[in-house]
Amino acid sequence: MSQDIQTLTHALREFALARNWAQFHAPKNLAAALSVEAAELLEHFQWLTEAQSHNLDAPKKAEVAAEAADVLLYLLQLCDKLDIDLLDAARQKMVVNAVKYPVAEARQGEVR
Amino acid sequence: MSQDIQTLTHALREFALARNWAQFHAPKNLAAALSVEAAELLEHFQWLTEAQSHNLDAPKKAEVAAEAADVLLYLLQLCDKLDIDLLDAARQKMVVNAVKYPVAEARQGEVR
Amino acid sequence: MSQDIQTLTHALREFALARNWAQFHAPKNLAAALSVEAAELLEHFQWLTEAQSHNLDAPKKAEVAAEAADVLLYLLQLCDKLDIDLLDAARQKMVVNAVKYPVAEARQGEVR
Amino acid sequence: MSQDIQTLTHALREFALARNWAQFHAPKNLAAALSVEAAELLEHFQWLTEAQSHNLDAPKKAEVAAEAADVLLYLLQLCDKLDIDLLDAARQKMVVNAVKYPVAEARQGEVR
Repeated sequence: MSQDIQTLTHALREFALARNWAQFHAPKNLAAALSVEAAELLEHFQWLTEAQSHNLDAPKKAEVAAEAADVLLYLLQLCDKLDIDLLDAARQKMVVNAVKYPVAEARQGEVR
Repeated sequence: MSQDIQTLTHALREFALARNWAQFHAPKNLAAALSVEAAELLEHFQWLTEAQSHNLDAPKKAEVAAEAADVLLYLLQLCDKLDIDLLDAARQKMVVNAVKYPVAEARQGEVR
Repeated sequence: MSQDIQTLTHALREFALARNWAQFHAPKNLAAALSVEAAELLEHFQWLTEAQSHNLDAPKKAEVAAEAADVLLYLLQLCDKLDIDLLDAARQKMVVNAVKYPVAEARQGEVR
Repeated sequence: MSQDIQTLTHALREFALARNWAQFHAPKNLAAALSVEAAELLEHFQWLTEAQSHNLDAPKKAEVAAEAADVLLYLLQLCDKLDIDLLDAARQKMVVNAVKYPVAEARQGEVR
């Protein structure tokens, strides 16, 4: 696993431990919290056009970055609880996707 | 940014480019896709008890890992499009959270 | 369609029209807003145990009711835009579910 | 409450009872399932443009109607468990929204 990801994961573990939050952090609950944070991120975009979504002003971009951070923080905690190597899983998924969406067919609009 | 995260981000950029998917990947759409993947992850847990969610069998764990990977892959693509440094945002958010949830109050159940 | 549902749907149409919100209310956007509201509802439950979720106090119950209302309001607007008869679709779905989840198998824990 | 809504709610209660699903249907779990179904609805729209989302073909529209039905069915079950009058809550929310989003300001783009 990446050093940065591991450092963050350990910091999150200490953070929850210090606050006695293990009681709340069942994987089921972390998965719900992750989904809630992803929706909070989406909320920033729901009334924007696609074009507008490419050009956020600085305050909006900062809010979106904070929501993206929340998504990552819950994702890391969930993977930590379940002993999942997130980066490894991501690399494996990219291989799966390469097979699922062949370049030739994608370019012809036949897949996706 | 972490080397691993950067490598994954570049691979995702190449993947989308090869398939001519830039047309689909407005931040608005990536935020929606991220939210959908987070819900697919949650779906695995919705009927489990908290206790069961700690003890997934191997096939279920592999499915959850693949959904967690999908969440990360869309999160990285969204941050790439918006020029957000995800790990930096995550570190900043942890500082914000430390102020928001003081240890003493959290242990007394006064916050969260 | 039910009289109450039709009355609500018409009121929502007038509400959006008066505010010039047709520009925002593409089905795509309403589907995103619906998903965001469903997550706001879920947020109230994410750290509760299943047992606690059965016994909300009055203020929490009022908040949950308001979020449930938001979900319904976006669902009605989405169905109105797409000319979907929601109650009819719900009745059809119950027939589908009855076939998908036979009583005998469900009671033996073989389905779901 | 509307007669149709009440009839559906009772049918859902019988359906779950016959399958011994009360064990799964804590409000917490129903809220998660609702959120998952809302995301499945959103999934149909995630790569569409706003314009395309107005013009679904018949098979796609049928799929969207089935997902909208799932959202309603879980919403009704959640409200039934919590003794929330959904239509009443929706009417109250519309009054709240009318105050929150005054017509004059909305038309000037000052709110939303």
